[in-house]
Amino acid sequence: MEKLDAQPLYTRVKRALAERILSGIWAPGRLLPNEFQLAEEFGVSQGTVRKALDALAAEHLVERHQGRGTFVARHTSDTVHFRFFQLYDAGGRIQPDSRDVRVAVADPSGRERAALALAPEGRVIRITRTRTHEDHPIIDEQISLSEALFSGLLERETIPNTLYDLYQTDFGITVARVEENLRAAPASEATARRLDCPVGTPVLAIERVAFDYSGQPVEWRVSQCLTDSVFYHSTLK
Amino acid sequence: MEKLDAQPLYTRVKRALAERILSGIWAPGRLLPNEFQLAEEFGVSQGTVRKALDALAAEHLVERHQGRGTFVARHTSDTVHFRFFQLYDAGGRIQPDSRDVRVAVADPSGRERAALALAPEGRVIRITRTRTHEDHPIIDEQISLSEALFSGLLERETIPNTLYDLYQTDFGITVARVEENLRAAPASEATARRLDCPVGTPVLAIERVAFDYSGQPVEWRVSQCLTDSVFYHSTLK
Repeated sequence: MEKLDAQPLYTRVKRALAERILSGIWAPGRLLPNEFQLAEEFGVSQGTVRKALDALAAEHLVERHQGRGTFVARHTSDTVHFRFFQLYDAGGRIQPDSRDVRVAVADPSGRERAALALAPEGRVIRITRTRTHEDHPIIDEQISLSEALFSGLLERETIPNTLYDLYQTDFGITVARVEENLRAAPASEATARRLDCPVGTPVLAIERVAFDYSGQPVEWRVSQCLTDSVFYHSTLK
Repeated sequence: MEKLDAQPLYTRVKRALAERILSGIWAPGRLLPNEFQLAEEFGVSQGTVRKALDALAAEHLVERHQGRGTFVARHTSDTVHFRFFQLYDAGGRIQPDSRDVRVAVADPSGRERAALALAPEGRVIRITRTRTHEDHPIIDEQISLSEALFSGLLERETIPNTLYDLYQTDFGITVARVEENLRAAPASEATARRLDCPVGTPVLAIERVAFDYSGQPVEWRVSQCLTDSVFYHSTLK
């Protein structure tokens, strides 16, 4: 029987493991010690270790692969898309392509500086691209990153559709949470040109800040979407 | 030490209690037996019961009041607003007022019939109102309900700003989840008149279906919002 004031044992094991992952001591993709080794280390049963790992898996901090072991979770194109992309059509979550991708370095605007908490001399890398769905342009997107963190991006020949897996594998930056503010706005002349619609067409403007596990902002993004054939989906419980 | 394949004991107690609440055996506002009585009933320690109740409180199924005991959670105007309302301004979540409130019975449109899963002969109660923020009209709202479930609404003299607490106290219907689809759209002539804006002004159209604990749709709502001074906020983890 558990003591009155004690946390369940597995919760304490879970916290100890989560600390190693969130602190970066154990990097994304790393194989964890097996259940027997962890049980030895913490002086608990393998059942308790298994429950701790199950709880970490439920929070997407680890991934369990039958017969291969448990790994520190790594963002993949699929998991990133599933967790952080909310545009749907009647068939479900859409997977837009990208065209007219441009990457450039610039002095930040006031909004970029504030959103990314940039140092006084810090510059930004801007990625602009048009996202297409079934060959129609539907999103005019601008992404701003701190040059200090992401300078390697400038040497890349191509930019993939999903970026957070790239941030993790190439830059060691894991996006853990995004905050989005949505508004309806009239398409500007530039946006209308990129989306092939009349100036002033209503677009859904999604302004997003992405944060890493420590709570530091790592990306600022504005996506202006035509919503004739797609919509933004949200569940509240 | 816990057994290899056993759920923690408190999880099993939690599930048994959750079942009584979700099934309606224990109604909203009901005082639960005290920890000693529950421990006796389940043959576990009071510490285990306490953990089960903590877990239920974290899921908003019960509310614990120091010195008074634990109650089946009841929607209040505040908790409803906090859980199901996502419009913010720079100062935080806004609390709009209502004006021009109308309540009427009608034959359902095809969308109402589908969204509410109405019986063939079923009619709807429509509530239309204009929501204001700092005395400016910002939301043109239409709410559709099954007349079979909510006929008592027609006799009310006033309709409160938050409805889900009313649905629970007066109609025994608890909203547990809402699904929202958001689009940008041009204000129609009727919406423009109610929002005091030019026809065609971009509005954020939020289409919502609310579900009870059993997964049955109980409300369909379309809110068309001016987003000059407010925005829809969403967090993804």
